[in-house]
Amino acid sequence: MMLLRPFTVLALGAFAAAALAVPPATPTPAAAPRTPGEIIAAAKPGDWVEIAPSDLLVMTLAPDAAGSPRRVIIQLMPAPFSQAWIGNIRALASAHWWDGTSINRVQDNYVVQWGDPNGDDGAKAKALPAGLAKTSQDDYATPRASGFGTWFPFLRDGNYAPHVGFKSGWPIGWDGDHAWPVHCYGMVGVGRGLAPDAGTGAELYVIIGHAPRHLDRNIALVGRVVSGIEQLSSLPRGTGALGFYEKAEQRVPITSIRLASELPAAERPRFQYLDTASATFADYATARANRQDSFFIKPAGGADVCNVPVPVRAVNGGAQTK
Amino acid sequence: MMLLRPFTVLALGAFAAAALAVPPATPTPAAAPRTPGEIIAAAKPGDWVEIAPSDLLVMTLAPDAAGSPRRVIIQLMPAPFSQAWIGNIRALASAHWWDGTSINRVQDNYVVQWGDPNGDDGAKAKALPAGLAKTSQDDYATPRASGFGTWFPFLRDGNYAPHVGFKSGWPIGWDGDHAWPVHCYGMVGVGRGLAPDAGTGAELYVIIGHAPRHLDRNIALVGRVVSGIEQLSSLPRGTGALGFYEKAEQRVPITSIRLASELPAAERPRFQYLDTASATFADYATARANRQDSFFIKPAGGADVCNVPVPVRAVNGGAQTK
Repeated sequence: MMLLRPFTVLALGAFAAAALAVPPATPTPAAAPRTPGEIIAAAKPGDWVEIAPSDLLVMTLAPDAAGSPRRVIIQLMPAPFSQAWIGNIRALASAHWWDGTSINRVQDNYVVQWGDPNGDDGAKAKALPAGLAKTSQDDYATPRASGFGTWFPFLRDGNYAPHVGFKSGWPIGWDGDHAWPVHCYGMVGVGRGLAPDAGTGAELYVIIGHAPRHLDRNIALVGRVVSGIEQLSSLPRGTGALGFYEKAEQRVPITSIRLASELPAAERPRFQYLDTASATFADYATARANRQDSFFIKPAGGADVCNVPVPVRAVNGGAQTK
Repeated sequence: MMLLRPFTVLALGAFAAAALAVPPATPTPAAAPRTPGEIIAAAKPGDWVEIAPSDLLVMTLAPDAAGSPRRVIIQLMPAPFSQAWIGNIRALASAHWWDGTSINRVQDNYVVQWGDPNGDDGAKAKALPAGLAKTSQDDYATPRASGFGTWFPFLRDGNYAPHVGFKSGWPIGWDGDHAWPVHCYGMVGVGRGLAPDAGTGAELYVIIGHAPRHLDRNIALVGRVVSGIEQLSSLPRGTGALGFYEKAEQRVPITSIRLASELPAAERPRFQYLDTASATFADYATARANRQDSFFIKPAGGADVCNVPVPVRAVNGGAQTK
């Protein structure tokens, strides 16, 4: 039997983790360790942070073959990350620009992508609203000077970032000078052409497979799906190159994409995420890294940042992550 | 711009990697670096290893709603890994035991699982063939003494294994004493009850999301899907607990599961995998870890073992991995 290794939190420079010391897992033979789900279920009301309606995008797809409605809800990232693209996304939603566009690409173990299917054809491309911001690849990562708080807890990585952790509810990489969001399952990013093109925000994708972390710092991440990802991840895979649908009729029509803040108050979805600075989140991350609940016999002693999904729940609904 | 870090190969003890020294990535401004796909396309015929028909399972599902056939092909792992379960799986296939069973569970970002939907109900469970081997959780990892060759190249991990690499075409973890297969996308494992139950092999699952590496050494892995995973990963998610289908009619009927070696010769699918001991595989892994081809601006300098999928191709067909 492998010995239990404590879950390591590294404190770096000014990013003192003392306020969130993650305790080593201490096996208590008398009581069964709590599962990550049990820890979330026991969170205090104050551990949950409400997501502003202006940070929620509501995507409505054409009904499925059985006539059932399909809705996907995306949370946009907070400052200081990716704000040029996110400003454009808010402008595109306010202009109802995505209405009548479609999901055009579903590549297995990779991405679902949507936008104007003729976006690469200058003659047929749908005109973008005026006033979109110019974006830059320099903003795929955010310099320390931009300010992203005084600390966040660090998990081990090993390949894609010197350090990884969570900031204001998001999985983040960090190299001492810059911080950047990372490509976990469900994260939403901005399609682009070859560099230095950095994309406008009109073409978006969501990760539906193993985290393609090699995309980190190579493309802008702007948000994550907080509800309805199964409406995207279960779509038929495209059979064209890169998973594009080969026939127009295979594309999934997008009825509308709206900011929740622009919906009538009674129609606004409400979501909360678990405060990643809370002791509850630390307990949850520790449990994810040291599964000792009934099914498990060998705790790993660590966790990939993408295997610690930030819990999100619908208000007056159930938790949205397993 | 981040400096390029060489892709590190660690040689441990008797596992000398000298024969497969992975060169550091040396940017050559004059020529565009090859993509991983270009490296695979240029592999020599001798870099490919034929998979024995006795190591291929052919799963035929009921046709989809449009009447299209659905076929999934699974490669079983070689000795010395998980052989008790794999022997049972061969016996179950030879007995046509899975015919008439079903896919019963599809949990988003996790697994698709199949077998007898009444397997947990003693009164209704389908009888298993006589003579199945007893399995043990002690065999989730294989001791060094069992012999698994003289070396394999190591990638960095950081959380789930002291070392990871590839052996005979498979992603493997290693702690100096034991080696074990790891839960990457597409890997197939054996459902089980609470420990010490280790499962018979009659209930199988495949990973359809971010690698749940915390399952490593907690459950038996027996193979991987080499063709048709999109037939499983795009199934509607189950809405019951753990993604089980709530209604019997939602289950996907399994028409048959056969060993390719028991099919008429003309009907046997043929597949090959890229020899993970070849220089071509080393070049491919290096390229995966240091993407410098046209789209990329910041190479990662490392790769998660599950982001270096072992290339598999159908003979007389195209490559099966992207």
